[in-house]
Amino acid sequence: MSDYPVTAQTRLRRMPERGQYDQATVHAILDAGTVAHVGVLIDGAPVVIPTAYWRVGEDVLVHAARATRFARALRSGQRASLTVTLLDGWVLARSGFNHSVNYRSVMLFAVPEEVEDAESKNRLLDALIERIVPGRAALVRPATAKELAATAVFRLPLAEVSAKLRSGPPKDDEADLDWPVWAGVIPLALTAAAAQPDPRQSAGLPGRPPL
Amino acid sequence: MSDYPVTAQTRLRRMPERGQYDQATVHAILDAGTVAHVGVLIDGAPVVIPTAYWRVGEDVLVHAARATRFARALRSGQRASLTVTLLDGWVLARSGFNHSVNYRSVMLFAVPEEVEDAESKNRLLDALIERIVPGRAALVRPATAKELAATAVFRLPLAEVSAKLRSGPPKDDEADLDWPVWAGVIPLALTAAAAQPDPRQSAGLPGRPPL
Repeated sequence: MSDYPVTAQTRLRRMPERGQYDQATVHAILDAGTVAHVGVLIDGAPVVIPTAYWRVGEDVLVHAARATRFARALRSGQRASLTVTLLDGWVLARSGFNHSVNYRSVMLFAVPEEVEDAESKNRLLDALIERIVPGRAALVRPATAKELAATAVFRLPLAEVSAKLRSGPPKDDEADLDWPVWAGVIPLALTAAAAQPDPRQSAGLPGRPPL
Repeated sequence: MSDYPVTAQTRLRRMPERGQYDQATVHAILDAGTVAHVGVLIDGAPVVIPTAYWRVGEDVLVHAARATRFARALRSGQRASLTVTLLDGWVLARSGFNHSVNYRSVMLFAVPEEVEDAESKNRLLDALIERIVPGRAALVRPATAKELAATAVFRLPLAEVSAKLRSGPPKDDEADLDWPVWAGVIPLALTAAAAQPDPRQSAGLPGRPPL
């Protein structure tokens, strides 16, 4: 797979060794993430909105109720910023200064493009359900024309995008290595617990998550 | 505890029943979260930056290397937006349209104020370490004047702030309740695994995380 171009916006200045611009890394982080934080301008000031997202090929997709401020900002023609962050651990060094965080993140800049046609929206929204439980999109009650009209879907093409990662143990100053404090990593991960069935249903229905 | 005032920016328009403006709820979400996403203007466009954060009283604190674009944007005098999101679960309804997410989030707007004085910075940075492992700040090698000078610390006062939450099972249309698909919640939580000691240390040092 190829690399995304490095632009003035996506070039990492701080700790450039943590930057990655290749498709495989960017796709893997986006596919492992759950919630994106999208920055848009509302009344001239930045607003950061958390939202579900998903990837289809070289597009990141987000959806919103049609008439919200968020949807209006996304269709305004202004550049948006979308960031996905996976927190992998606290990094505890011998000095406070060298404490750090293990993480994988993707930062994407794009002018969102609204998907207008109902059939495309339907297909894309199915991909969001499939991302959560594969095979589920075909099982749920199909979307109505009214529901599709009430849902705005936006694509943010993967063009101006970078990944940033840190992993591994603390990087202490050599002179601190004998400082008498425990050093290491607390690994963190978003984990799923056993699915909780809605009580109002018969047993044995399909579309249940594997766990 | 009292409520934060509802302003034009913080008033929830979409699903206002999910909004909370009380101190206890806002504090609890901020104290349970790990990473904030901060929206700043860089060259006139929003950029969303993931960062560690912490709360001390009625301030949220973030830090940055002194000369980064992020630090310059935070000290520019422009309004920033800071969002903390805890993802609690995927909500699987009978229709795609009623699928949802269980979450707790806080959205804060403020013009960040830089903490200039080294002693205050030192004390505040200690509070970040204490948040990760209580008792650890006193054990690490103390910060040097050079390290404190290289670290910018900003306070964002909790004034214009709101919380938004969803919890519980799917809310399906009555007519969909017999649709033959499993419905319920997949609970999600950020969980810590056993701490991984840096191999370069003696056994039994203090400051180890409890897990």
